[in-house]
Order: sequence, then C-alpha cells, then structure tokens
Amino acid sequence: MSTSTPTSHAFDQAIALQPQDNNLFAGATSDTYQNMVGPFGGVTAATLLNAVLQHPERIGEPISLTINFAGPVQPGAFAIEATPIRTNRSTQHWLLLQRQAGEVVTSGTAFFATRRETWSEQQLSMPAAVAADSLPLVSRTERSWFENYDFRYVSGLFNPASPSEHDTGDTDTVLWARDNPARPLDFASLTAMGDVFAPRIFHRRQRFTPAGTVSMTHYYHADAAQLIEAGDRHVLGHARAARMHNNYSDQIAHVWSDDGTLLLTSTQVAYYKE
Amino acid sequence: MSTSTPTSHAFDQAIALQPQDNNLFAGATSDTYQNMVGPFGGVTAATLLNAVLQHPERIGEPISLTINFAGPVQPGAFAIEATPIRTNRSTQHWLLLQRQAGEVVTSGTAFFATRRETWSEQQLSMPAAVAADSLPLVSRTERSWFENYDFRYVSGLFNPASPSEHDTGDTDTVLWARDNPARPLDFASLTAMGDVFAPRIFHRRQRFTPAGTVSMTHYYHADAAQLIEAGDRHVLGHARAARMHNNYSDQIAHVWSDDGTLLLTSTQVAYYKE
Repeated sequence: MSTSTPTSHAFDQAIALQPQDNNLFAGATSDTYQNMVGPFGGVTAATLLNAVLQHPERIGEPISLTINFAGPVQPGAFAIEATPIRTNRSTQHWLLLQRQAGEVVTSGTAFFATRRETWSEQQLSMPAAVAADSLPLVSRTERSWFENYDFRYVSGLFNPASPSEHDTGDTDTVLWARDNPARPLDFASLTAMGDVFAPRIFHRRQRFTPAGTVSMTHYYHADAAQLIEAGDRHVLGHARAARMHNNYSDQIAHVWSDDGTLLLTSTQVAYYKE
Repeated sequence: MSTSTPTSHAFDQAIALQPQDNNLFAGATSDTYQNMVGPFGGVTAATLLNAVLQHPERIGEPISLTINFAGPVQPGAFAIEATPIRTNRSTQHWLLLQRQAGEVVTSGTAFFATRRETWSEQQLSMPAAVAADSLPLVSRTERSWFENYDFRYVSGLFNPASPSEHDTGDTDTVLWARDNPARPLDFASLTAMGDVFAPRIFHRRQRFTPAGTVSMTHYYHADAAQLIEAGDRHVLGHARAARMHNNYSDQIAHVWSDDGTLLLTSTQVAYYKE
C-alpha cells in the first residue's frame, strides 16, 4: 500500500470500522486523535457517519448529522449501531449509537438523500481571507489531535501561551484548515473539520476552562463532486457564538472550499464550567 | 376549568400526552395545527419535547433538541417513546421516537441539564424592529396552523396573494410572533415558535414549491425564569438561509424575547423540489 492512499492516512485509521451483523460495527479509539477527555469529537462524529457510509443498505449522501456526546469515550474498543429507521424512495433516516461496555457514550441521527438538480443559490459568501500559504502554520502540542491538522489562523486565535490582554468582546474565529498530512476531502473528513474550532469560551475569555461539546449538528451543502473539487487543499472555517448562559454556549460555524463554495453549516452547544 | 388556564389552550391540547408504561406516551394529532401534509412541524417537535418534560425520570431543563421528520404524521393516534439513554450527575441524554402503526414517523434526540450560575454573555443582539403592536396582524388562511399564531412581519413577508415582483436576493425574515390567543411562553411553545418561519425557498423565490423541514435543531439559551419573564408577549424571530443546493436548503434562526434576551438558536434543513 502506498503511503499516499487514503486508507493509510491516520484519519482513515482512526475512523476505520469492521462490519458485524445486525447493523453493528466494531472500532477502536486512536491515540493520534486524543483530546483532553477521550478522542477529538470531530473524529468521533466522523466515525459514526462512517458506519452509515459503509452500511450496505445506505442510499444517497449525507444531508444532516446530529451527534450527542453523552459520556467520555474511553481508550479502546467500541461498538457502533447504525440503524436505518425509515427509508423512503430517495431519503433515509438513521439512528446512531456508540457503546462501550454496553453503555451509550455517543448518540446521533443522520439523514441521507439522493439529490436531483434544482434551482440553487449560495447566499452566504466566504469571508475575505488572505491565502492559507501566506499565514504561519500554528503548531500546538497541548492536545495530540492538533498535530493531525494544518491550521492557519486568519483571526481569532486563542493561544494559551500568549493570551490577548484586551477584551475584544469577540467570539469570531476564521481559520484555514486541512488534514496533516494533506488528504483529499470527503464527507468523513469534512465532518471532523466542522468541529476543529476551540470552544468559543476559550477565545472569548482568553483562557482554558473545563468545556466540551455536548451536541453538534452538521448540514452538508456539498455533494461528493464538490468535495472532490475541494481536493486536499485548505478549507476556510468561520465560527462564532450567539449566547453563553449558565454553563452552555452555542456555536455557529460555516466551512467553505478555497474557491468560495459553502460546504457545511454547523452548529453545536458546548458545556463550560465557569 | 377557566379559559385562561394554560391547559385549555389549543396548543396544550395539541401537545397533550397520556403516559403509558415503559417510556411510552400516547397522543393524537390536532386538527387545529394541520399543515399541508400532516401537523405543523413545530407542534410535532413540541410534542416530542413534552414527552421528556412529563417523564418521571427527567432532570433539568432542555438545552438542545433535534427532531427529524422522517415521514408524514397521519391524522389520528400516535405513540411517543422517550428513553433516557444516558444520565450523568446533572445532565441527561434522550432518544425520541414517534410511531404510527409501528412505523417511525419522527425521530429525535434531546439533551437536558441542570444549569448553575456562571460567567455569561449574550453576543448576538436583537435586530432593530418597530413594536409588534404598530404592525398589522397578518391573517392567512391557506394552512390551519397559521390561525393559532399572531404574526407581525417586520420584513421578509412572503404573501402568495401578492408576490414581490423584484428579485431582492434576500432570504431574511424578521417577525414578531406569539400564540393566538396569547399564552405564557414555556419550553414547549418556544420549541414550536422556532419553526414558524416559512421555508426560505418560498420567500427567496416568491412562490410555493413542494418543501418541508427534514431535520431541525434547537439550542435553548433561556431557562424557565427567563421564559416566565417573556410572558405572553410577542417574541422576535429572525431567519435566513446560507445555501440552497439541489433539493436542500439550510435555515439559521434566532428568537428573542421583546426585552432583547436571546431565547433560542435554531437551525434546520428543508427539502425543496425545484
């Protein structure tokens, strides 16, 4: 196997599943995508999506995905149950459960569909941003999963080593991201990239606090052909919060390919402690 | 029973459930909230949330809710199964399934939690809008559920009787909404109000096309005390789309109380035919 084939990439190893009977898939956590508590949530989400992508009864492409992080995923083996709970002519609804030792650690739902060509329009333009290659690579070592991405911050970097001393009141981050090493974009990697933004509370308060995503929803605007067009180049992400109130903050994010095509609308709600 | 008690309101009748054994609840569709195909989705979402609100094992208040409209809800009886799939110390994850004749018609997940007081901030301000009472009541009869709401459009009204003749390129709607007759806001009615915006494709193209929400996610910023403060007055909603592409459009919406408190961040993805 050549080192350039997708399946040899650390990301593909992290989301790999072995099909079992009865809608079940077996997997194991990857050391290379660990976060503070358990794996990087974006990889967990991509792994649950991957169960549907590999399911023999699957029709169409992902339109929406909701992932609920119910409890920490412990290092080691897990089982994913992906059940098609309603199949219509060109659409399909899925129920997703990830279990360890019989306990649900992640739940979710997904909606897949076959698209037909219709009147189409993109309303939300990509923010102005200088080219990724003109920005410094941000190398961070405090969490292992960071090393699997090439991040170039346009604005809104929270660096714990040099917190901003002034209160901007801003929750916006704009960054270029791609897998590191580069890997052609697909539905699984786009799913993970929708979760690469630090909790907005870190950026807003310029410090760490116990925090973590509890639920995340992706809407896939891109079809497979548009993902192929995005290639293995950086995508641009923009994330911001609308309100932080008593332990919970929302986040709205969008991800564009470098030619300005909106690939993903993503929202999430995150717990924060203080 | 006085006509002013909440339980006598048509909305409360529409979302009413009878608890059964084993996480099951029995309900029936309401003629007063019918949409083109099946009930108004906001009422379906509120009914599924209501199963959790009534569940004896429920802890805390809703933080997030995702509802997937898997198939048309037929007039008549339905069963809702609300299962607490993971309960932590102050948080709880729920799986929601609505069935008719054994078939899943709606699926969902919910996350509930007990909040504690933390550093808090609202980033997204309410758009400028003239007072609800200074705007005309928009009375529409093409779908029965409209009559259960008092809508006052600030901007972005699509009226099929007088479509706009120029292409604004705009997908934004800002409107005041409350139950009709007035009813004190609670988590169930806020859930429905997050879905009162017409499909963005109607507004964008100034005409009807077959369309319908396939998945909707709400993040509740308000706690019960803030809903009580909102009273039975209008709330302000703002909805817009980011991209419409080959049968599917997203929508991002926010709902504020009339004092400018952000109550809800909501996203949905809707099918459209052409």
